[in-house]
Amino acid sequence: MSLTFYYSPMSTASVTQLVLAELGVPHEAIRVDLKKGEAKTPEYLKLNPNAKVPLVVHDGTAIWESSALTMYLGEMFGVDKQLWPAPGPQRGEAMKWVAWTNVSLGDAVQRVARNLMWAPEDQRNAAAAAQGVKDVQVLLGVLDGALAGKSYLLGDTYTVADTHVHSFTDWLRHMNTDFAPWTNINAWSARCGSRPAYKAVMAAGTT
Amino acid sequence: MSLTFYYSPMSTASVTQLVLAELGVPHEAIRVDLKKGEAKTPEYLKLNPNAKVPLVVHDGTAIWESSALTMYLGEMFGVDKQLWPAPGPQRGEAMKWVAWTNVSLGDAVQRVARNLMWAPEDQRNAAAAAQGVKDVQVLLGVLDGALAGKSYLLGDTYTVADTHVHSFTDWLRHMNTDFAPWTNINAWSARCGSRPAYKAVMAAGTT
Repeated sequence: MSLTFYYSPMSTASVTQLVLAELGVPHEAIRVDLKKGEAKTPEYLKLNPNAKVPLVVHDGTAIWESSALTMYLGEMFGVDKQLWPAPGPQRGEAMKWVAWTNVSLGDAVQRVARNLMWAPEDQRNAAAAAQGVKDVQVLLGVLDGALAGKSYLLGDTYTVADTHVHSFTDWLRHMNTDFAPWTNINAWSARCGSRPAYKAVMAAGTT
Repeated sequence: MSLTFYYSPMSTASVTQLVLAELGVPHEAIRVDLKKGEAKTPEYLKLNPNAKVPLVVHDGTAIWESSALTMYLGEMFGVDKQLWPAPGPQRGEAMKWVAWTNVSLGDAVQRVARNLMWAPEDQRNAAAAAQGVKDVQVLLGVLDGALAGKSYLLGDTYTVADTHVHSFTDWLRHMNTDFAPWTNINAWSARCGSRPAYKAVMAAGTT
């Protein structure tokens, strides 16, 4: 088995880095310097024509998109370790949270980030950013409600769906999102943050 | 086995409808009238707190997000029919295209749609819409390149990853996206559009 992980700090590759660490998957990690254009070389574009990280090459096959990677790595390496459900409806539940994070929550967060800072100034709209901030709160309410009375997204058992969603909420905290109303998320975050794999990755300082 | 599919015409539920048809999964279909607030009743919110379609309830478990549903339905009902790869790197390839459609392509398309029509006028920005149109073209270039020399996304075999991405591009055509430069996509679309399941769903007029 060979698995190569291409990453860049402060990107969605951090999610995949944490998932790989939690699953204990042996791999080679290659840092891609996006500012130096290392994701735009012909060799890299052959593997990921989107010129982005994360990218995983598993036994010669290039796989990208952090949501696909969490689900893929979970099913390949997580079932025996009870970090990903076996095939069946419970796996569907894990998949829906991973997809929801990147698609629904991700959409609202992108609107905030683009309209406040990422987009060139002439492409920004302050009212759209304000709407995005509101929408993020509604979505965090959905997550908070789902965590009520549960230790983890799927109940008593921690899975890499938690790793994925938790890593994303970490980034939202970094962006000064208001988490004060979300007591279930905050208690769950403390549980997720106490995982040895999470602490080890954070201590290494490469995310 | 019981599977209930909640949908609304002209929504991302169309993708799931086509996937269910292609896989031949027996199910009950329940139309949700979004304008009448049927996705906001307490009963519905218990199943999908996002108040959206598509929603699938499979043996009592609620699963949402069209990208998660395509992958989930593919692995549950598609492997024997060769409409979804068995576990392994090829499945990862199918997953990356489904995720890419909703996350990367979806983000650019949302920016176009919101800034041109979906958002209230005071939240729109014409320059952001124009940038979105450009970004959609770059992403379609990625898809077109991936289809070069291949019949389907994974090579010779049609999978529900094709169903998913094709359904999304159908919607882009409906939104007047320029597909003239993308000869590989257009040839592939013709192949996908000739599937009996696709034709049957289109003829029923419920998407």
